[in-house]
Amino acid sequence: MKVPPDLLAFLIAQNNFFIATHLNPEGDALGSSLVLAAALETLGKKVVVFDRDGVPEFYRFLPGHERIIRSIDGIETSSFNLLLLDCNTPERAGIEGIAFRFSAVIDHHETESDFGGIRWIEPHVAATGLMVLSLVDALGVPVTRDMATNLYTAIAIDTGTFRFGNTSAEVLRTAARLADAGAEPAAISASLYETWSEARFHLLRMALQTLEIRDGIAFTFVTREMYRATGAGPEDTENFSSFPRIVRTILVSAFFREIDDDYWKVSLRSKGGLNVAALAASFGGGGHKNAAGYFVRAPLDAAKEMLREKLSAHLRVPEVPR
Amino acid sequence: MKVPPDLLAFLIAQNNFFIATHLNPEGDALGSSLVLAAALETLGKKVVVFDRDGVPEFYRFLPGHERIIRSIDGIETSSFNLLLLDCNTPERAGIEGIAFRFSAVIDHHETESDFGGIRWIEPHVAATGLMVLSLVDALGVPVTRDMATNLYTAIAIDTGTFRFGNTSAEVLRTAARLADAGAEPAAISASLYETWSEARFHLLRMALQTLEIRDGIAFTFVTREMYRATGAGPEDTENFSSFPRIVRTILVSAFFREIDDDYWKVSLRSKGGLNVAALAASFGGGGHKNAAGYFVRAPLDAAKEMLREKLSAHLRVPEVPR
Repeated sequence: MKVPPDLLAFLIAQNNFFIATHLNPEGDALGSSLVLAAALETLGKKVVVFDRDGVPEFYRFLPGHERIIRSIDGIETSSFNLLLLDCNTPERAGIEGIAFRFSAVIDHHETESDFGGIRWIEPHVAATGLMVLSLVDALGVPVTRDMATNLYTAIAIDTGTFRFGNTSAEVLRTAARLADAGAEPAAISASLYETWSEARFHLLRMALQTLEIRDGIAFTFVTREMYRATGAGPEDTENFSSFPRIVRTILVSAFFREIDDDYWKVSLRSKGGLNVAALAASFGGGGHKNAAGYFVRAPLDAAKEMLREKLSAHLRVPEVPR
Repeated sequence: MKVPPDLLAFLIAQNNFFIATHLNPEGDALGSSLVLAAALETLGKKVVVFDRDGVPEFYRFLPGHERIIRSIDGIETSSFNLLLLDCNTPERAGIEGIAFRFSAVIDHHETESDFGGIRWIEPHVAATGLMVLSLVDALGVPVTRDMATNLYTAIAIDTGTFRFGNTSAEVLRTAARLADAGAEPAAISASLYETWSEARFHLLRMALQTLEIRDGIAFTFVTREMYRATGAGPEDTENFSSFPRIVRTILVSAFFREIDDDYWKVSLRSKGGLNVAALAASFGGGGHKNAAGYFVRAPLDAAKEMLREKLSAHLRVPEVPR
């Protein structure tokens, strides 16, 4: 992958960097940020890494995760160059209104925003981690075992551990290179997928009991009452939306998480060609083609029905002659 | 991987091959057999592929699967050379007592059997498919798109799609090579993991409702009554044993499938270093280190208790001075 020369020149010329990534960070956001920070430090630069939401517990196996700060108190941001990773607006990182010396964006999400003095956006790349690896190579920094672990995690998460449509030969070859450099595929997978609490597992069982399948949509939900019954919390519902995808007849899995009375976060996961980013956008949300979400204020049944109607219209084949 | 010269010479010298693989075949058994057959046919040999149990429905995306025969009626077996793949005794393939001209074994399972005039057994190789790919290369046969799909499936299944401990850099590099040759990672994963019937999903939900966790063991079960209630069948329980592994505190997942009154098939899945093959063997069963099974005649509670006791003894740290 070709690194933009202006970005490379900027990283080489500058000395103070403030790396920020998105709220509610996952493996690609965290891994990419930690690796770019380590690479720049190898070159003698000063780097801070910021995520307002901090590192979720099950990502605390990532080497260097403890360096991620959640507050900018005491940091003279205006003397730092912002590097915004795995997102492309200050709002997504919770840093709107904060002044920086300059800003560069490195991201693989489609966007209409024009934020950033330098913008490197590659919507067809599977993970921001792959872009960061290209940067590390371009900077001439050797990939350490810690970097390999972070980048492997970044790629694993964003490709569903090599199951999603973005899993190319190049992605697999890069994973092999990172394993050669010391990443441990099985240990990383176990950290990502086999560290659930019993409470979380009980919550999943409850969510699966709510399954309702209509018109190719799998509806599941979790209520605040279920948190009380199981001892699990909202953060435990990550990926619940993916489970019903294993059913052949399901085109979209829609998972409703209760936030307040008649107020829901809806996570959509699609299979194949169906673009749920557009669907989520029509409710004021957003996301990727196969993974998107939105918030809705309505009683559960009404919220489900709104989605079902919109999706049916979306799926209906136009019958106009062409 | 080095192919034994006697095996290679044998494949080149002979003209009639009877490829057989194990009962209840999965992706590695099927994919390896289909690819070796295609490669030998490219060299002008006559090949039949046999599996007594036939091809499970969700493996019918494998190119060439329809050529697999379930009966030897009308085949003069004594004029064929047996190639036993992904298993190492005639009993595992349901062909005991059948006469062949000669026999060769190609397998990655640990064994004490000495069956086979030529034996190529590599217990440290992740999948028989990797051995077959080495053979195809050694025979000088180009890897077609169909071969790549079969071999990618073989490797994906036996590494848990690159999540198990046998996922090495070499495995990932081979997967990349196969993707280059035309295997489609996402389509294969969808075929393997996202084609469940609704009945099967309902059965899984019921099985998860039976979860009981004691001493690091997750017990789940499925009864014949549950088949009646959901419309699912015994073959739908494949991989049910793996689900509880996502819970951090669980060392072993034990899934009990009712066969008859007080008669159960037990599937064990372990995490980390725990060897369930030895545990299963102590009940007259067998398998791999992290995936094994056995049959037991006892009421369910007694059968669970027998396992719990034996596992506790197995886990107990010896306190004798050394």
